[in-house]
Amino acid sequence: MHIEQVFGRNEDSLQKLSKEIGCGYATDSEKIFPDADLYLIAVSENAIPEILEKINLHNKLIVHTAGSVPVDILQPYSDHYGVFYPLQTFSKQDDINFREVPFCIEANSPENMEKLVDLAQNISDDVREINSEQRRILHLAAVFACNFPNLLYIIAEHILHENNLDFDILLPLIKQTTLKITKDSPANLQTGPAIRNDMETIHKHLELLEDKPVYKEIYKLLTATVISYQ
Amino acid sequence: MHIEQVFGRNEDSLQKLSKEIGCGYATDSEKIFPDADLYLIAVSENAIPEILEKINLHNKLIVHTAGSVPVDILQPYSDHYGVFYPLQTFSKQDDINFREVPFCIEANSPENMEKLVDLAQNISDDVREINSEQRRILHLAAVFACNFPNLLYIIAEHILHENNLDFDILLPLIKQTTLKITKDSPANLQTGPAIRNDMETIHKHLELLEDKPVYKEIYKLLTATVISYQ
Repeated sequence: MHIEQVFGRNEDSLQKLSKEIGCGYATDSEKIFPDADLYLIAVSENAIPEILEKINLHNKLIVHTAGSVPVDILQPYSDHYGVFYPLQTFSKQDDINFREVPFCIEANSPENMEKLVDLAQNISDDVREINSEQRRILHLAAVFACNFPNLLYIIAEHILHENNLDFDILLPLIKQTTLKITKDSPANLQTGPAIRNDMETIHKHLELLEDKPVYKEIYKLLTATVISYQ
Repeated sequence: MHIEQVFGRNEDSLQKLSKEIGCGYATDSEKIFPDADLYLIAVSENAIPEILEKINLHNKLIVHTAGSVPVDILQPYSDHYGVFYPLQTFSKQDDINFREVPFCIEANSPENMEKLVDLAQNISDDVREINSEQRRILHLAAVFACNFPNLLYIIAEHILHENNLDFDILLPLIKQTTLKITKDSPANLQTGPAIRNDMETIHKHLELLEDKPVYKEIYKLLTATVISYQ
C-alpha cells in the first residue's frame, strides 16, 4: 500500500500529514493526482457531495468512509465505487490498535470488493462485508452502545461531583461491566435494582433525583425498560 | 487476616466455601463463634435486619457490605459498627483483581475506622472513607454508569441481531469509549449525531426505530439531553 497524495482545504495540516506519510498534497481539485488505484473520501457526511462534484474520475475506484451514507451516493461519479467504514471512534490524540478495528466494506462489484477487502486486511484483522442497510443499523446500534453510555457517564460524574466524590471511583466497575460483555450476552448480565424489582431502592434513587427532572426522567424510563425484561 | 467461620443458610455452599478458605461454618445462629474481631454481614439488603435480630454481639465490631443501607441500621445491635462496601459488580464466575476494587469504609468511631481501613488495605490499593449519604449517591451513580449502559448494550444487540449482525462488531468501539474516560472527563468526550446537532442522521435513526416505541423514546430522551449540553 502506497499513499500518493492527500487532498484537503487546510494547507497547514496537509503539509504536516503529507510529511508524516511521505506523500504529496493538494488543496486544488485540479491538482488531484489522476492515476491512483483508489480515491478515499474521508470527510464529514455532509461534505461528501461537495467533494464529489469537484472530482472527475469516472473510471477510478472511489470510496467513502461514512456510517450513515448509502454506497449509491457515489454511483453518478464513477463506474467503480464502494465504502470503507472503520467502526471506531477517533480523536487525533488517540492511540488505536487498528488491527482490532472492524472494517465494514461494501462495493459495487466483486472485483472492487476484492480490492477493498485486500486493502482493509492490510490494516485490520477484522474485515467484514456489510451492505448499506446493515451499515445504517450498525451506526444506530453504535449510538446506543457508545454515545448514550457516555452521556450516562456524564450524568454519573455530575451526581458524584455534587457530592464531593470523584468519578474515578466508578472506573473499575465500568471496566468490569464492559469486560463481561466480551464473554457473554449483555442480556444475561443485567444487574441493579431494576432487574431485581427492588422498588425500595428505586424509590430512594428517585428521591435523590428530585431536583434533577431530566435525570429522573431518564432513570424512570430506563428502569421501566429493564423491569419489562423480567 | 484470618477467617474463623462462615455463617449462612445453604449447608452445601457453606461446606464448599469453608473448605476453600480453611475455616469452620455454621447454619445455626447459636453456633456463631463469639470471639471474632469482626463480623461481616454480606447478604442482600433486605436480609440484613433478619440476620441482626439473630445475633447477640453487642461488644463486637459488626459491618455490613451494602451500598444503599445507612450505617446506623447496625447501631441497635452493637457499640462498634461500620460499613465495608466494595464498589464492584460480582458474579460467582468472575475473575476480579481485588487490588483495583474501591473499598468504601464507614465506622462509628476513629478506632473502628482504623481497623476497617487496615483490613481493606490488605485486600485493595483503593480504600476510601465514604459516609452513608455519599454511599447512597455512589450507588445511584453506579446505576447510571453500569446498569443503564448494560441495558443500552442489550438494545444495541437486539437491533443488530434483527439485521443479522453480530454484537461483537461493537466491542472495539465500546472498549475505546471506556478507555477514553480513564484519561479525560466524559463531559469532554461526547461524540455522535446529537452533540453535532446532526438532525438528518437523528431523523434517519428515529425512522429505523419506528416499530420500536420504547427504543425510540429512549433515543429521543437521551438525544435531547445531549443536545441540551451543547
